[in-house]
Amino acid sequence: MLVTSPANVRYLSGFTGSNGWLLVGGDRTVLVTDPRYEIQAHTQVDCDVWVTRSKLVGTLAKLVRKWGWRRIGFETAHLRHEAYAGLSETAQSGVEWVPLKGWVERLRACKSQWEIERVRQAAATAAQAFDAIVPLLKPGLTEKEVATELDYRLRRLGADRAAFETIVATGPNSALPHAQPTDRQLQAGEPVLLDFGAQRHCYASDMTRTVHLGAAPASFRRLYAAVLEAQQAALEAVRAGVTSADVDEAARAVLSRHKLESLFVHATGHGVGIEVHELPRLGKGERARLREGMVVTIEPGIYVEGYCGIRIEDTVLVTQQGCEVLTQAPKNLLEL
Amino acid sequence: MLVTSPANVRYLSGFTGSNGWLLVGGDRTVLVTDPRYEIQAHTQVDCDVWVTRSKLVGTLAKLVRKWGWRRIGFETAHLRHEAYAGLSETAQSGVEWVPLKGWVERLRACKSQWEIERVRQAAATAAQAFDAIVPLLKPGLTEKEVATELDYRLRRLGADRAAFETIVATGPNSALPHAQPTDRQLQAGEPVLLDFGAQRHCYASDMTRTVHLGAAPASFRRLYAAVLEAQQAALEAVRAGVTSADVDEAARAVLSRHKLESLFVHATGHGVGIEVHELPRLGKGERARLREGMVVTIEPGIYVEGYCGIRIEDTVLVTQQGCEVLTQAPKNLLEL
Repeated sequence: MLVTSPANVRYLSGFTGSNGWLLVGGDRTVLVTDPRYEIQAHTQVDCDVWVTRSKLVGTLAKLVRKWGWRRIGFETAHLRHEAYAGLSETAQSGVEWVPLKGWVERLRACKSQWEIERVRQAAATAAQAFDAIVPLLKPGLTEKEVATELDYRLRRLGADRAAFETIVATGPNSALPHAQPTDRQLQAGEPVLLDFGAQRHCYASDMTRTVHLGAAPASFRRLYAAVLEAQQAALEAVRAGVTSADVDEAARAVLSRHKLESLFVHATGHGVGIEVHELPRLGKGERARLREGMVVTIEPGIYVEGYCGIRIEDTVLVTQQGCEVLTQAPKNLLEL
Repeated sequence: MLVTSPANVRYLSGFTGSNGWLLVGGDRTVLVTDPRYEIQAHTQVDCDVWVTRSKLVGTLAKLVRKWGWRRIGFETAHLRHEAYAGLSETAQSGVEWVPLKGWVERLRACKSQWEIERVRQAAATAAQAFDAIVPLLKPGLTEKEVATELDYRLRRLGADRAAFETIVATGPNSALPHAQPTDRQLQAGEPVLLDFGAQRHCYASDMTRTVHLGAAPASFRRLYAAVLEAQQAALEAVRAGVTSADVDEAARAVLSRHKLESLFVHATGHGVGIEVHELPRLGKGERARLREGMVVTIEPGIYVEGYCGIRIEDTVLVTQQGCEVLTQAPKNLLEL
């Protein structure tokens, strides 16, 4: 199999450079890269390393012809058409290229102890950054300024970078699940939604907290309590053996009881690891069963257009008995 | 033509979402995206917007069949095999898909006044961040800490984010052209190479400065003076009408005169705009001529393995008479 997705190459080989393809066979495995990464590749990987000054695709084609390989899988969701066209030329020599999807991604869903330790660190770093940013949340700061300060703290606390573009959304902006920070100022009497994570040693974490500037009105408190209850119910539903849909349904049932289900417009969670979004997906109709060692987010939310959004999200480790919350930070409603 | 590269979609339509494809025809143009970006798309683009809950490729295939399009270009260097395979199914209806490369990228090489203003701001922001970081460069800080502080200042000064992963490389680490910041501490008697840029309103800048902690030995000063002379020569060679190779050769000739050419292991520069690396490439054998409105980096460097690297880089605007340096920051050797 030819592996071209950087996250998958990293997972299988340990190589972290930006330009490296992995050819994995029954009897031999080789990483093909360019001279910029020669030293790094030899340090990071156990398999053979092939360094080329030309395009990786040409070198790959030569290798498979030389080795007489006949049938090779490739990652259809990652390989660009241009590279595919280059590989296809080897069909004249009788090589068959077979599109594959999700093969390595499925391996990545269950984490090893080594990986769990890395996600644990990334999660702890994010939780610490939340604790550090809360005292700064005051009217007058803009969403962008808060995002800047939060990312700065993530890195000061040991993150290599923010795991994704940090979301800081105030008031009505928080009703957009994928809001980007704007120049809008924090205002008393409004919620602030913070969705962020740390990337550390190639592993990510992902968490969300929604706080309120000043005392929250009763209506907001009720909504917040419902989302928190839904998140707790989903957390309690997590354990090895249940389906992803079961966990999603646990959150949805609570919001349904509060007549808020129509405001919950996304899935309950997703896997986290080398990438921020990976397998499994915790949504309606997902029949795959959770397994010990999976790391997933639990993040129900409700979105009221023009008023506010509330989302509470943790990164958790799936265990035999239940789950361990890795992003340990307060979830009671903070009125700042 | 089907445009799927996010940077190209952004350039042609103004759409900045993460999931949008543009179908550009003689008589009609449509942006296809998903419901998350419906409001944003209508705000940002002038053309028709088609919103789909399913995969973009299926909607695209339906549209071209409905419109009776027969021959459609696509971006071979960007489109994934999976999407290509989906589009290919329309071949049964007589649609021919033609691989194209660099069509929009070549349009992007010459910037409009509107774009130049954006790059100018991104360049000014980076230059200001350099001025702000210099007083902090003291022995004991790690490369990662300096990168964290520099990125923080970029954003405080108005950048939406660092334009790329900031390089801070000390002593022998600076000899690696693509060094990543490590936990190595800044030390008196060693150089510090800083390569960074601001992204602001979707446009990037790119600059490098090499400073020395403490008084530099004569050998280092000689090397630094040679690189600075090479950079000045290249800057003086820039103007509309010369070839990219001419500019590269101007830098290379100076280093050759100092018997340092073998230490200059990369090209002299590249275009900067929506992406940090775009057309043109300023290297050996590049016969394309510079044109007014191009924005390019000029960045000769020399790398002595185990000792140090020195690179001096500016982002400049190509004009009829010469060039305008947009990253205005000191280039004399700073001994801190």
